[in-house]
Amino acid sequence: MSKALVVLSGGQDSTTCLYWALRQYDEVVAVTFDYGQRHAIEIEAAREIAEHAGIEWELVRIPPLGGDSPLTELAQEVKQYESADALPGGIEDTFVPGRNIIFFALAANRAASLGCEIIIAGLSQEDFGGYPDCRRVFVDAMEKAVNLGLEGTAAKIVIETPLINMSKKETVLLAQEVGAMEALALSHTCYNGERPPCGHCHACLLRQKGFEEAGVEDPLLSGS
Amino acid sequence: MSKALVVLSGGQDSTTCLYWALRQYDEVVAVTFDYGQRHAIEIEAAREIAEHAGIEWELVRIPPLGGDSPLTELAQEVKQYESADALPGGIEDTFVPGRNIIFFALAANRAASLGCEIIIAGLSQEDFGGYPDCRRVFVDAMEKAVNLGLEGTAAKIVIETPLINMSKKETVLLAQEVGAMEALALSHTCYNGERPPCGHCHACLLRQKGFEEAGVEDPLLSGS
Repeated sequence: MSKALVVLSGGQDSTTCLYWALRQYDEVVAVTFDYGQRHAIEIEAAREIAEHAGIEWELVRIPPLGGDSPLTELAQEVKQYESADALPGGIEDTFVPGRNIIFFALAANRAASLGCEIIIAGLSQEDFGGYPDCRRVFVDAMEKAVNLGLEGTAAKIVIETPLINMSKKETVLLAQEVGAMEALALSHTCYNGERPPCGHCHACLLRQKGFEEAGVEDPLLSGS
Repeated sequence: MSKALVVLSGGQDSTTCLYWALRQYDEVVAVTFDYGQRHAIEIEAAREIAEHAGIEWELVRIPPLGGDSPLTELAQEVKQYESADALPGGIEDTFVPGRNIIFFALAANRAASLGCEIIIAGLSQEDFGGYPDCRRVFVDAMEKAVNLGLEGTAAKIVIETPLINMSKKETVLLAQEVGAMEALALSHTCYNGERPPCGHCHACLLRQKGFEEAGVEDPLLSGS
């Protein structure tokens, strides 16, 4: 009996991971974090996706986070770009310091108390604006810290990141394969919280690029 | 210019660490976590200690944590013992799964955004009820995870645990040395949240033992 906890943002990647997990594990539950994000609309998307998938879902409210990211500092503007080709390299200014450290820490508490041996997150080190906490090297270190911090009190926890080395194109193909396309119509990606999506923020552009390269219509757009 | 962030519970050890830090670093700030603890009175103690020390202090509210610890599940009772000698070995049932993982994760966000290169916590692996997240091996792993998760966005963070290998007796002697005794009169230790302390919970018994072995009167008791 395997039980997995999915960190579900309500976006494309974590939604794909949720449907991937449903095929892998006996029981799947999900947690969504409200961290005061500009695109709080993704929380509603997560709720709808969990309902669509018929799984247990919990919303956890995180205290306001420090840092200058326009995702949490609403006075800052989210940068707009003409196309995915115009995206700069380096670390995006949308980076929220410690966000995934905090997500995994809280997920570990939930996993330990719910009896989940697997935590699943939709991180991708290929396509994530250079965020240092979207790299597998970070996840490996976090997995080790989590298990040492819980040692002797809970089953060993494995943190799975099935998309970690995939391009956005490959994640779209995986979404098709695991039957996530209907749920992706409910998902939310745009950093500006707009629906239909603004189409010019980093997150929108990467999503577009992935669907284009996969030759698949984004169900979010066809549905809107 | 060195700036340190102390994780201040309001108890004996973190208070001692705060005064230790004031002698080590140019600037010291503190953060206290409200995690729905039974002994929420320690938060008021932390506030008073920070005021006494004349430092900037922040209270961060953590979402309710899972697990059966009597520290967070108020329907559970905190075990009472006759004396420190009667304390059982192994992991105390007061262990809150992932608590220090979460504390360090949130402290990392604050350290990164406040420009602190040092996080200080009063963990002690000698005397902490067998909590796996009070061991230096855990702290080392957490420090690594934190730095990988913030890499390229903030200065390297060092997590210091000056009491990690000290007995409670030694921490009492250190508290004297760094001038923390007045602040210790304001501190709170009892898991039952009682003042004067219940004297029979794990935390009370360890505090008593330390002061007795050091041959020092506990200012909390002489002041009450």
